[in-house]
Amino acid sequence: MVASARVAASLRRAALSSRPSPCIKNIRPALQVRWKTEATTSASSEPLQPDAKGGVKGDPATAKSIKFTSDSYPHIQRESKFAKLTEKHIQYFQELLDSESAVLDGVTKDATEDIEPFNIDWMRKFRGHAQLVLKPSTTEEVSRILKYCNDNMLAVVPQGGNTGLVGGSVPVFDEIVINMQKMNNIRSFDDVSGILVADAGVILEVADNFLAEKQHIFPLDLGAKGSCQIGGNVSTNAGGLRLLRYGSLHGNVLGIEAVLPDGSIIDDLSTLRKNNTGYDMKQLFIGSEGTIGIITAISIQCPRRSPAINVAYFGLESYEHAQKAFRAAKGQLGEILSAFEMMDGRSQKILKEVAGTKLPLEGDHPFYCLVETSGSNTDHDSEKLQNFLEHVMEAEIVSDGVLAESQTQVAELWACRERITECLGHWGGVYKYDLSLPIAQMYELVEDIRDRLTKQGLLGDTNEHPVVDVVGYGHMGDANLHLNVPVRRFDKAVEKSLEPYLYEWTSKRNGSISAEHGLGVSKKPYIGYSKSATMIKLMKQIKNLYDPNGILNPYKYI
Amino acid sequence: MVASARVAASLRRAALSSRPSPCIKNIRPALQVRWKTEATTSASSEPLQPDAKGGVKGDPATAKSIKFTSDSYPHIQRESKFAKLTEKHIQYFQELLDSESAVLDGVTKDATEDIEPFNIDWMRKFRGHAQLVLKPSTTEEVSRILKYCNDNMLAVVPQGGNTGLVGGSVPVFDEIVINMQKMNNIRSFDDVSGILVADAGVILEVADNFLAEKQHIFPLDLGAKGSCQIGGNVSTNAGGLRLLRYGSLHGNVLGIEAVLPDGSIIDDLSTLRKNNTGYDMKQLFIGSEGTIGIITAISIQCPRRSPAINVAYFGLESYEHAQKAFRAAKGQLGEILSAFEMMDGRSQKILKEVAGTKLPLEGDHPFYCLVETSGSNTDHDSEKLQNFLEHVMEAEIVSDGVLAESQTQVAELWACRERITECLGHWGGVYKYDLSLPIAQMYELVEDIRDRLTKQGLLGDTNEHPVVDVVGYGHMGDANLHLNVPVRRFDKAVEKSLEPYLYEWTSKRNGSISAEHGLGVSKKPYIGYSKSATMIKLMKQIKNLYDPNGILNPYKYI
Ligand SMILES: Cc1cc2nc3c(=O)[nH]c(=O)nc-3n(C[C@H](O)[C@H](O)[C@H](O)COP(=O)(O)OP(=O)(O)OC[C@H]3O[C@@H](n4cnc5c(N)ncnc54)[C@H](O)[C@@H]3O)c2cc1C
Ligand SMILES: Cc1cc2nc3c(=O)[nH]c(=O)nc-3n(C[C@H](O)[C@H](O)[C@H](O)COP(=O)(O)OP(=O)(O)OC[C@H]3O[C@@H](n4cnc5c(N)ncnc54)[C@H](O)[C@@H]3O)c2cc1C
Repeated sequence: MVASARVAASLRRAALSSRPSPCIKNIRPALQVRWKTEATTSASSEPLQPDAKGGVKGDPATAKSIKFTSDSYPHIQRESKFAKLTEKHIQYFQELLDSESAVLDGVTKDATEDIEPFNIDWMRKFRGHAQLVLKPSTTEEVSRILKYCNDNMLAVVPQGGNTGLVGGSVPVFDEIVINMQKMNNIRSFDDVSGILVADAGVILEVADNFLAEKQHIFPLDLGAKGSCQIGGNVSTNAGGLRLLRYGSLHGNVLGIEAVLPDGSIIDDLSTLRKNNTGYDMKQLFIGSEGTIGIITAISIQCPRRSPAINVAYFGLESYEHAQKAFRAAKGQLGEILSAFEMMDGRSQKILKEVAGTKLPLEGDHPFYCLVETSGSNTDHDSEKLQNFLEHVMEAEIVSDGVLAESQTQVAELWACRERITECLGHWGGVYKYDLSLPIAQMYELVEDIRDRLTKQGLLGDTNEHPVVDVVGYGHMGDANLHLNVPVRRFDKAVEKSLEPYLYEWTSKRNGSISAEHGLGVSKKPYIGYSKSATMIKLMKQIKNLYDPNGILNPYKYI
Repeated sequence: MVASARVAASLRRAALSSRPSPCIKNIRPALQVRWKTEATTSASSEPLQPDAKGGVKGDPATAKSIKFTSDSYPHIQRESKFAKLTEKHIQYFQELLDSESAVLDGVTKDATEDIEPFNIDWMRKFRGHAQLVLKPSTTEEVSRILKYCNDNMLAVVPQGGNTGLVGGSVPVFDEIVINMQKMNNIRSFDDVSGILVADAGVILEVADNFLAEKQHIFPLDLGAKGSCQIGGNVSTNAGGLRLLRYGSLHGNVLGIEAVLPDGSIIDDLSTLRKNNTGYDMKQLFIGSEGTIGIITAISIQCPRRSPAINVAYFGLESYEHAQKAFRAAKGQLGEILSAFEMMDGRSQKILKEVAGTKLPLEGDHPFYCLVETSGSNTDHDSEKLQNFLEHVMEAEIVSDGVLAESQTQVAELWACRERITECLGHWGGVYKYDLSLPIAQMYELVEDIRDRLTKQGLLGDTNEHPVVDVVGYGHMGDANLHLNVPVRRFDKAVEKSLEPYLYEWTSKRNGSISAEHGLGVSKKPYIGYSKSATMIKLMKQIKNLYDPNGILNPYKYI
């Protein structure tokens, strides 16, 4: 009581000294808060794309205007070793899956409308020619499908929620889509150990809601949670918003069940925290983007859900100030810091303009940060946060800030970060880059690229300029920058200006050209900027070992 | 202030009601505490073994009394495909390493005394016939050594601190020991990201002391820290005392540098938290026990060191009570809980008898727990701990307890857990098992085995009984039991009574026959109890892929 009064008093002082009407509010943390942004979190089992206005559900009619990947990447040629689908194949699959909804057949009849959503990726940048979508319901079915495809040289694309951002989840040519949405059972949960075992097709948000009822949390969260599947998350080694706190899937996933192209089932669904009995084979599947097997189930350790969750949102003068705020947060919030996200002023402006979102702070700031804490003791967390706020206000590290006072406000603040991705598509398209860089140099790249595109006459306010803006935001706590270039149209001149320039820039600073989104089609040619020839050779060995015919997700990854 | 007075008062009440003279003390946490137990933590670069009295340094003379592995496991035959060492080989290595201390040559001269420590494992249970020990200083040297050995079919054993507990770090026959102690440089540390890059041969305690100066902590700690090497830790995927808090090495290790048998250098020493550019090859090396390559360096993310560390030690009435205490700790200590260790009464009695340790609590208790918290705010942590203590005392979950009041006391309490391992060797030998089991059933196995050995007349107080006792302790937070059977002599009847019975017991409960110690020689035959035939086949493929000649650590693992 005494302590918090003292803090409040000094906060008032601090706030007053930095600006006339302080927005920082005294904190009353919401219990068991889960943030939802309406647009992205209505758990859905259909693949989804943003429409031209940045909304999430696309109008099927406009799908036709999206270029085929085979046209935009003419150097990628269909491999002649793969068989073409025939009536015989369809018959086999129909008998095997024995349910109409499980086989979308565009071979023996016209099913373009039905199949289209499975052919187009979330960004509406990649479009395949699949004529067949299969939706197995059991591991056994996945095994039979793969064995048959492998024996008959039929190429396939494993597909989860189709929210991937590198074109990995849709076909390039006529690969069969194996969509996992029907494998959506939670198999078991142990509330002493917190270990969840569930089918790969369970939607992330569904899994997390289930866990919320048991006072646990899925150790991963991301803007696409209403659509992406936990199998897709593991296949892409998704990082997301809370890696900072809960660590990577390589540490949290305890077991997987997966099917290899020859149909053999890997039954490594351990529910043990520790099991040092041989090479940790499951690790190869984490982040393998459907190129060596199809994951059918995972076992994962889930932490207790924190009863106290606090979210603050700041405006800052410069990137230098954002770095200072991050260091202060690490030091003063310690073990309760669960997210530290950075957004530049342009990203927030776009949010306001495109989505009509009323921003939490008045005025424009060059940078914004979102800080989340999760802890077991409301009073302690509030005090830590107050100390932190006091410090960043007094030291004039932040210019202004708000603290969520209710669950709704928590959601509103998170929406300022989570909804950026969808809004960027507003003008027609986005060049998306997801880089790991030394924190100190992270934003330099955004400025460099903005200058470069401006100088080259590619960026401008009018229609003759393809580029609308260059925007940077990301998981600052993980040194992970999302650099986005919203464009009025996809344009080879822009692409050539960006690539490989941007990868060279990253590589010179020992960064990663794909921090969390993976390789897919878009980053495949550039892996050499982040991995040595020796490493690439080793990876190719692995691919050949498990998928000697190369039927799994061809033209991608490696 | 008010709060802590209230807690203190109710603690006194609680304590009084459960026993007349309470030991629970008001808490004054030590800053930056690191616990040392004299016996195990004088960082040493020599391989070490406990002597017959349970001390750690062995008397070289008694080494001769240890049976050769080739005699105790007569079914293991030297593979004739391996060449025998000749003068020519020695000459090559001498020219290559160009330093007398780097080549212990027992081929062209008698060097038995010098080589003996490298031939015998920490438990004094395994003993090899190596005639040559090589100590490379650079990755390049490791590469040349391995290439030469591979070309000449010379078998090798990679060796770190030689503290492994499954006989993996010493030769079975005449394999060359490649000891990593000369590769002991810290290559870099970044105090913003907390990422450490260091040679494989750096001793864990040295790394941790280095990090302590930078206010960081190595995310792994274990009783052998004064001797084991970080490369050995990664090679065994060591779990240790703080996995509960900081997670497994699969999540924390960011990169490795390793050498394959053909001499190629894997340069995957990334210092990025996120890097989704291809299969995560390094993961295969984590826990591979020197069977596919030699790790020469690692990059690892290290958390900030907590300024507040508290340790409590409890006596409890039953295993049921220990489980209740664990649940209470998880709930009330939340994010600051950094260790929860369980020790049975027998393990503590042995400590008292063998090491002469004065136990922290008066009287005997059937079970003991050690609870550690680490957090960023001393007052908050104390309050959480007081609440927890109050709860476990009032609810009569614990019978008695002490709380460390100084750095020395913290060390003393930890010694009650960490020194058990060394004391168990006192009578002559120990059968050691390291199992993952469902928490609820963990201690049942100890009781079952004790009954079984007693009924079979193998356990007793007098010399005609080989078995002294059956002892259980372990990392309760990770559902990891160390079941130990101290014996007066290694005896086939005891081994037969224990194995495969104990593995079957574990397998029936979907446990792991090796939670953290690995496979080595001792667990190799039993892998089938924890892994399916499919998994074993996949692992063999990996072994063949990287080490087609099988020169790396033969007769072990898989
Ligand atoms: C708004 C938005 C926000 C995002 N935020 C983040 C973020 O913060 N962090 C992040 O890492 N990513 C983020 N992403 C990217 C994407 O959501 C993740 O990559 C997600 O993990 C993909 O899951 P999915 O089920 O949609 O997989 P899909 O997109 O369907 O597939 C992705 C890849 O995995 C393969 N695959 C899918 N399921 C399986 C399976 N069961 N077995 C084998 N292979 C499979 C596919 O073949 C494909 O190569 C975001 C995307 C959007 C649209
Ligand atoms: C008192 C005591 C307490 C212990 N407590 C724990 C515990 O709590 N948790 C736990 O997990 N373990 C524990 N152990 C076991 C042991 O300390 C660990 O397994 C440790 O990680 C081994 O490290 P090391 O450097 O001694 O490796 P070594 O014993 O030398 O080698 C272990 C294995 O790794 C291989 N190896 C070593 N270095 C390399 C390298 N650079 N490249 C490739 N292969 C290599 C060896 O060939 C061998 O197979 C304990 C041991 C003792 C003696």
